[in-house]
Amino acid sequence: MPGRLMVFAGSGSPLLTARICGVLGIEPAAGEVLTFSDGNTFVRVLENVRGADTYVVQSIVHRTNDYLVELLFWVDALKRASAGSVTAVIPYFGYGKGDKKDEPRVSIRARVCADALEAAGCDRVVTMDLHAPQIQGFFRIPVDNLYGHPTLCARIRELTPEGCVVVAPDTGFADEARMYADYLGTTVAIGDKQRTSHDESAEIMDIIGDVRGRDAVIVDDFVVSGGTLAEAAKLLLRKGARRVFAAVTHGVLAMAARDRIDRSPITRLLVTDTVEGHPAPLPAKLEVVTVAPCFGEAIGRINRQDSVSAMFPGQAAHR
Amino acid sequence: MPGRLMVFAGSGSPLLTARICGVLGIEPAAGEVLTFSDGNTFVRVLENVRGADTYVVQSIVHRTNDYLVELLFWVDALKRASAGSVTAVIPYFGYGKGDKKDEPRVSIRARVCADALEAAGCDRVVTMDLHAPQIQGFFRIPVDNLYGHPTLCARIRELTPEGCVVVAPDTGFADEARMYADYLGTTVAIGDKQRTSHDESAEIMDIIGDVRGRDAVIVDDFVVSGGTLAEAAKLLLRKGARRVFAAVTHGVLAMAARDRIDRSPITRLLVTDTVEGHPAPLPAKLEVVTVAPCFGEAIGRINRQDSVSAMFPGQAAHR
Amino acid sequence: MPGRLMVFAGSGSPLLTARICGVLGIEPAAGEVLTFSDGNTFVRVLENVRGADTYVVQSIVHRTNDYLVELLFWVDALKRASAGSVTAVIPYFGYGKGDKKDEPRVSIRARVCADALEAAGCDRVVTMDLHAPQIQGFFRIPVDNLYGHPTLCARIRELTPEGCVVVAPDTGFADEARMYADYLGTTVAIGDKQRTSHDESAEIMDIIGDVRGRDAVIVDDFVVSGGTLAEAAKLLLRKGARRVFAAVTHGVLAMAARDRIDRSPITRLLVTDTVEGHPAPLPAKLEVVTVAPCFGEAIGRINRQDSVSAMFPGQAAHR
Amino acid sequence: MPGRLMVFAGSGSPLLTARICGVLGIEPAAGEVLTFSDGNTFVRVLENVRGADTYVVQSIVHRTNDYLVELLFWVDALKRASAGSVTAVIPYFGYGKGDKKDEPRVSIRARVCADALEAAGCDRVVTMDLHAPQIQGFFRIPVDNLYGHPTLCARIRELTPEGCVVVAPDTGFADEARMYADYLGTTVAIGDKQRTSHDESAEIMDIIGDVRGRDAVIVDDFVVSGGTLAEAAKLLLRKGARRVFAAVTHGVLAMAARDRIDRSPITRLLVTDTVEGHPAPLPAKLEVVTVAPCFGEAIGRINRQDSVSAMFPGQAAHR
Amino acid sequence: MPGRLMVFAGSGSPLLTARICGVLGIEPAAGEVLTFSDGNTFVRVLENVRGADTYVVQSIVHRTNDYLVELLFWVDALKRASAGSVTAVIPYFGYGKGDKKDEPRVSIRARVCADALEAAGCDRVVTMDLHAPQIQGFFRIPVDNLYGHPTLCARIRELTPEGCVVVAPDTGFADEARMYADYLGTTVAIGDKQRTSHDESAEIMDIIGDVRGRDAVIVDDFVVSGGTLAEAAKLLLRKGARRVFAAVTHGVLAMAARDRIDRSPITRLLVTDTVEGHPAPLPAKLEVVTVAPCFGEAIGRINRQDSVSAMFPGQAAHR
Amino acid sequence: MPGRLMVFAGSGSPLLTARICGVLGIEPAAGEVLTFSDGNTFVRVLENVRGADTYVVQSIVHRTNDYLVELLFWVDALKRASAGSVTAVIPYFGYGKGDKKDEPRVSIRARVCADALEAAGCDRVVTMDLHAPQIQGFFRIPVDNLYGHPTLCARIRELTPEGCVVVAPDTGFADEARMYADYLGTTVAIGDKQRTSHDESAEIMDIIGDVRGRDAVIVDDFVVSGGTLAEAAKLLLRKGARRVFAAVTHGVLAMAARDRIDRSPITRLLVTDTVEGHPAPLPAKLEVVTVAPCFGEAIGRINRQDSVSAMFPGQAAHR
Repeated sequence: MPGRLMVFAGSGSPLLTARICGVLGIEPAAGEVLTFSDGNTFVRVLENVRGADTYVVQSIVHRTNDYLVELLFWVDALKRASAGSVTAVIPYFGYGKGDKKDEPRVSIRARVCADALEAAGCDRVVTMDLHAPQIQGFFRIPVDNLYGHPTLCARIRELTPEGCVVVAPDTGFADEARMYADYLGTTVAIGDKQRTSHDESAEIMDIIGDVRGRDAVIVDDFVVSGGTLAEAAKLLLRKGARRVFAAVTHGVLAMAARDRIDRSPITRLLVTDTVEGHPAPLPAKLEVVTVAPCFGEAIGRINRQDSVSAMFPGQAAHR
Repeated sequence: MPGRLMVFAGSGSPLLTARICGVLGIEPAAGEVLTFSDGNTFVRVLENVRGADTYVVQSIVHRTNDYLVELLFWVDALKRASAGSVTAVIPYFGYGKGDKKDEPRVSIRARVCADALEAAGCDRVVTMDLHAPQIQGFFRIPVDNLYGHPTLCARIRELTPEGCVVVAPDTGFADEARMYADYLGTTVAIGDKQRTSHDESAEIMDIIGDVRGRDAVIVDDFVVSGGTLAEAAKLLLRKGARRVFAAVTHGVLAMAARDRIDRSPITRLLVTDTVEGHPAPLPAKLEVVTVAPCFGEAIGRINRQDSVSAMFPGQAAHR
Repeated sequence: MPGRLMVFAGSGSPLLTARICGVLGIEPAAGEVLTFSDGNTFVRVLENVRGADTYVVQSIVHRTNDYLVELLFWVDALKRASAGSVTAVIPYFGYGKGDKKDEPRVSIRARVCADALEAAGCDRVVTMDLHAPQIQGFFRIPVDNLYGHPTLCARIRELTPEGCVVVAPDTGFADEARMYADYLGTTVAIGDKQRTSHDESAEIMDIIGDVRGRDAVIVDDFVVSGGTLAEAAKLLLRKGARRVFAAVTHGVLAMAARDRIDRSPITRLLVTDTVEGHPAPLPAKLEVVTVAPCFGEAIGRINRQDSVSAMFPGQAAHR
Repeated sequence: MPGRLMVFAGSGSPLLTARICGVLGIEPAAGEVLTFSDGNTFVRVLENVRGADTYVVQSIVHRTNDYLVELLFWVDALKRASAGSVTAVIPYFGYGKGDKKDEPRVSIRARVCADALEAAGCDRVVTMDLHAPQIQGFFRIPVDNLYGHPTLCARIRELTPEGCVVVAPDTGFADEARMYADYLGTTVAIGDKQRTSHDESAEIMDIIGDVRGRDAVIVDDFVVSGGTLAEAAKLLLRKGARRVFAAVTHGVLAMAARDRIDRSPITRLLVTDTVEGHPAPLPAKLEVVTVAPCFGEAIGRINRQDSVSAMFPGQAAHR
Repeated sequence: MPGRLMVFAGSGSPLLTARICGVLGIEPAAGEVLTFSDGNTFVRVLENVRGADTYVVQSIVHRTNDYLVELLFWVDALKRASAGSVTAVIPYFGYGKGDKKDEPRVSIRARVCADALEAAGCDRVVTMDLHAPQIQGFFRIPVDNLYGHPTLCARIRELTPEGCVVVAPDTGFADEARMYADYLGTTVAIGDKQRTSHDESAEIMDIIGDVRGRDAVIVDDFVVSGGTLAEAAKLLLRKGARRVFAAVTHGVLAMAARDRIDRSPITRLLVTDTVEGHPAPLPAKLEVVTVAPCFGEAIGRINRQDSVSAMFPGQAAHR
Repeated sequence: MPGRLMVFAGSGSPLLTARICGVLGIEPAAGEVLTFSDGNTFVRVLENVRGADTYVVQSIVHRTNDYLVELLFWVDALKRASAGSVTAVIPYFGYGKGDKKDEPRVSIRARVCADALEAAGCDRVVTMDLHAPQIQGFFRIPVDNLYGHPTLCARIRELTPEGCVVVAPDTGFADEARMYADYLGTTVAIGDKQRTSHDESAEIMDIIGDVRGRDAVIVDDFVVSGGTLAEAAKLLLRKGARRVFAAVTHGVLAMAARDRIDRSPITRLLVTDTVEGHPAPLPAKLEVVTVAPCFGEAIGRINRQDSVSAMFPGQAAHR
């Protein structure tokens, strides 16, 4: 049996950690993180952890590298302090986007992170809606990839009491959109997005599927600037949608996002609290739903050695 | 500088190896593979390889496990014989399909293969059209993932002199289809494929994009039974396509494929020679184009330390 | 303490697994193995295994590479599903014969297997009568090498109530033959086998030791074709032996074995059930004794953290 | 022989890289680093590097974690692009201060960095005046630790033409101060520094050694706030020193440093250019001497396989 | 929870092991070490250790290499016998002195030892007063570095009832001397030691700090020949010290030590029993205090998963 | 191509190293080994080795652990000094006898040595007549196992001009004895050795094969006390042998050997110079033949990347 359960808050996820601990009915374990004037990060665990089943909650985004390196130091500090096991809980793993060599001579950054975490002594990773499911294979240690859609769908049902159509902004998210649609018992429409030049931007050309007279819910795994959502919303309204919502697991929401979202025809943007501590002001239309119950239950199950996949019945067929 | 170039033929790719050596203007290096009556595989290198830059060409499919294990033995034998470097050339890496935990408690088989190859001492992998580009990240060693579409497109141009529309059988292959279309200077149509039940089969519901009066070329990375191709071909004809071709990198072509392809309205099925030694009779409509020039050039460039990505200008933007 | 005990049946050992579970008084744990039409193997664990003390029983022979790769996938699937520990129970480890570089530029195949198993995450190996005891040293993880002779000797005593002489077919098995003889309280004779040419076959020239008027029991670790046994049996009868039996741990028994054994003067060939699912018909003279009690007791002891070596008092002095 | 020499500029050391390349008579190799709006770092190598002997120059300080992670991505990108060897040139390794568990349950951060660099594929490290020489032992790969004092002493000689006394600010730097003194042919005085409470600050109580009427040069490996230097300078003047200089390898120089240094009685503060791109304005009394010739010669010697220790004759006896 | 506690005596520490076991109220576990006539060492564990929490106590000094290699064999034997965990208790780790490349082309011997121990399967190290605290960072596994000064100070208090001044023989031990002084509530004096030539010897030039009329206690981490202690004692008396004691954790005490110590003006030399089995006769002035209670408590705490750092409150601020 | 060839003499093999260098026409490279009064070993390389192809010659016997640990330090020092490759030349690898768990809870000592050498950074091993060929599989790095019998047979031919019979002292050396016999074009006799009790000694009961009137040459891989040889010699004379010689690769020759050999009826005992620096006086009947030409040629071939197995044509069939 694993040892007693201890959950530490990384600098990137203090609020979510507090909520998770609330769900688990425990206090966050005592530790501290300092940043010195030369830019160095310093982590100190303030309680005995020998033999304990320890978790560090740390999203890796915005101050991406600070949070990544801090997480490595948490893991090393806990291992050298003889923790029984160390689990990195990474609600949003921002370097998941670096999952392939999509051009010559670049790094596969997610693999670099995986290797560094394993080298530091990490025993397990818990995360949510990885950018690509293959990233689990970058790790040798077990990875529990939780799903955000059940949490978001519960709120979508309240917002669209007459039902909705789920919209994938591009073909790459079609499978995940079907997962939402199945969960909601509805259908899917898909944006036909094409890159128009060599820069990052891409344009949504068309929506495949009927949205007329229905509430449309655009779904995605993360939102940075909100540009794609705003563009898709306009197109959906032109195509006859009644109202447009968006439901996105990871609300990265960088600088320009507030204006783009608030000026868009989107009625409301749902995100979870995997990302917090945004450096930029947030859109007024934003609504945050917490995934603390989901992470709390997963951590409790891991500690009790119950099945985590049993939390998500029926999801296997989709990926 | 790497040592002298030596290319060994694994049991899974003797013909392609011979063709590659022809391109390189060398003889295949001397080695042999035995299978004993107890089922054991045995590999013997028959030439001095000290310091040499060695390559073993071995597709992993059909006798998948035999070829995988044999490849491990090749690598180990070469390393213990003090080869300077050992490159596994895997034209078709069949376990690429095992790239994620798409249901609970399964193995990420491609990662297992990657770890076993690295444990055996492999220094580099050269392959073609990996099932998912993330698989490069399963390896710590460099992986050169070559593209099959330039080879196939050269023949497509001859077969469809008046131009064609490229068809992705489902949204998951849309990006790759655009790579074909860009290469051919044409447009893309996409099949809307949906799984209808919990079994493996899926049905193509619709074709998005205009195919009327045009030759259609369905593209994919591998074909096993040909069922998807046959179904798509019928639908394309119903949608007004003139003729239907298919161009697929890896012609796995298991038992039922001959009948399905030959009875389908497909005019011709193009595949490359990454797969050979099929256990089943092949369709009459099949046409094989060789990728030996592509692999030969890549091996030559690696040995001379020239850029491999320079073989595929302009592909970076697509993946 | 280890977690709850779960025993999975690999495709190579379903019957032995069922018998072992019978000994342990448990049901085999739920899992399945599929082979797809492209030759790929797929393993799925169907029960929660978090924290469990898991065992996969899989002999590696006949479909040697299929069973080896399948075992790697079992181990990886169990580790990624957070099993507490994973033990590979390999009743017959066929690649044990690949234990040295007995000629230039060959692979040490047993080490390749060991490295691949460890890379996949295997925590321990349980096996029987390894071809060479040094193979334990190919692994960094603990290896429990069980002995088959107590099981076989129990039946030998019944078959030769007036006692017997134990016969090693060649000098290389002399030590093991003495282990049998000590266990039975009798003496040893040794075949003087010499390779007569560069091929695999070897001829038994003479028998050293007196066999006149006694029942002779030829012992060996494995039998493939039965040629050596048949030849030794003839020579023993010429030397005056009363009857000739053979007792061999691993009954590989390939194609030609039935004829060779049944036409030989051997009265009965005893083997254990470490090998099952033979592709070839079995000799009529064959008698199988089960080692399930031995493996069951070892697994139970490992799970309870009792000594395994205590199962074999007095064997230390022989190897 | 190593391949052709290529030197890449990390974001933390563009100026020093340019100077090093000037010394070597080559252009910096082409690469780029992007920071996305979600905080992610992205590295791209823009030239073929197959078989090349590559160096990335990157000090790790100020934006410590950004530069560390960026360096990992450089190394991974170069290894995956088949560079012959990858050397991390880290002029100032800021996490060298995290070299021990000086209190319970902290991370040994320098070891975490070492493991991450090795996991990413780094082949060698070149650095200068490591905070503790033991840090070389945190790496399995070779580490060339260059000395900064010959560069600084050349300028000290010019500034103190009548000779000087070398001052170590505390006993922990006494050995290094003797290295300076031997190089300059002079004597040493040592500050008796004692921590006065549990916070970070410490007070210099006394100066051991005679400084009356002489120019004093305080030496140290790094300066962050300048507080210790300012305090030591006052004490030295009280003890009768003529003028006070300071010579410090790594001029970290955080926020408060400008005021502290400029208001102190220090005549001039010498630092090298291992640190650049300071976020804060620099003291007017600062003078920077370049170590580019030292790094350039070391890189050239490594590439030509000449001895690096031969650059520092007679230093062995001091450490 | 760890398994049952078992403590084995290595050949280098039989007496200390017996004392530790006395403290713990257990018998030493059964094992034996043989040295064959060809010089080979052989280790045999004589009890079942499956799942047990095992400790081997072995100082590495005098027969340094014999004890190091023997320790590797203990670790390997225990791991292969399925011990739950293996802790190397190394009261004196003699190769700690090999902690850096203090001259070109030497080995970092402490890292070599660390890697060999980890490769053999060691899970943890417990040691005392490491020569440099950075050595913890040579290990990836947790290292508990115990302090010897509380044990020595208890006896110092008895020997110097009117108080004493603590003397560091050189600046390199100044921090540790302050640790003694804080513990005793007194002050520190520091020897100014300078190497006078290129050989190993160094001369103490002066004592910084007032020792007049007081008992002086020279402290150090190890004593080999006693030369430095004798020299410092003479100087202290010349400087007006009343009596001179020495307190050193590790009493290596090689050949010449007896004469040097006994002829010196040192009143008494205190050492602990981390070193035993000296090949040379010991000084008459020597007094040994046992650290068995310290090691016994640490082992008990590790086995019960209590904090070890809690044994040394307030030490964090010193290192 | 490997770099320039440098051969270092370990403390265990200075004479053999000098002879090997003579064969190669080079001077031994400059290095030194010190033993301090605390028992520590210290290794220093005294020449630049960057990029060089380095070899350390060190037999591991008599002062077994000293030589093993010294070898680890050589390897580490050379790797950290950036040697291009490091080969451990171990003429006699004494821990080869620790190749299996021949009783419960012992270490597989040869694997521990292999892991420690690889952890230290060793790239290759060259050795002679390993105690078991499986030991090559304990290493992941290439191992060149040279044969001693051609060197010994050249002298045997001179000593027995009328031919001889080769005698294996027990069945375990029968295969190797046939290798001698084939090389000499003669026949083999085998001793039937049985352990008579639980101690180490064993008694030769009988000789199988005709030795009457012929010179007999007992062959073995190592001789420690000479007891077996003396006993076998007596028996051979009783069986009618004309004269008895012995030819053994590794002359360990511990304390009692001189008397046993000189008092035995053996005419002459041939050994090679893989072992030197014996602590005991050597037998008068001893004759040493050098294997320096064999090792020299092997090293030269490795450096030139020629085949080493080509030195031993026809040996493959025997093992």
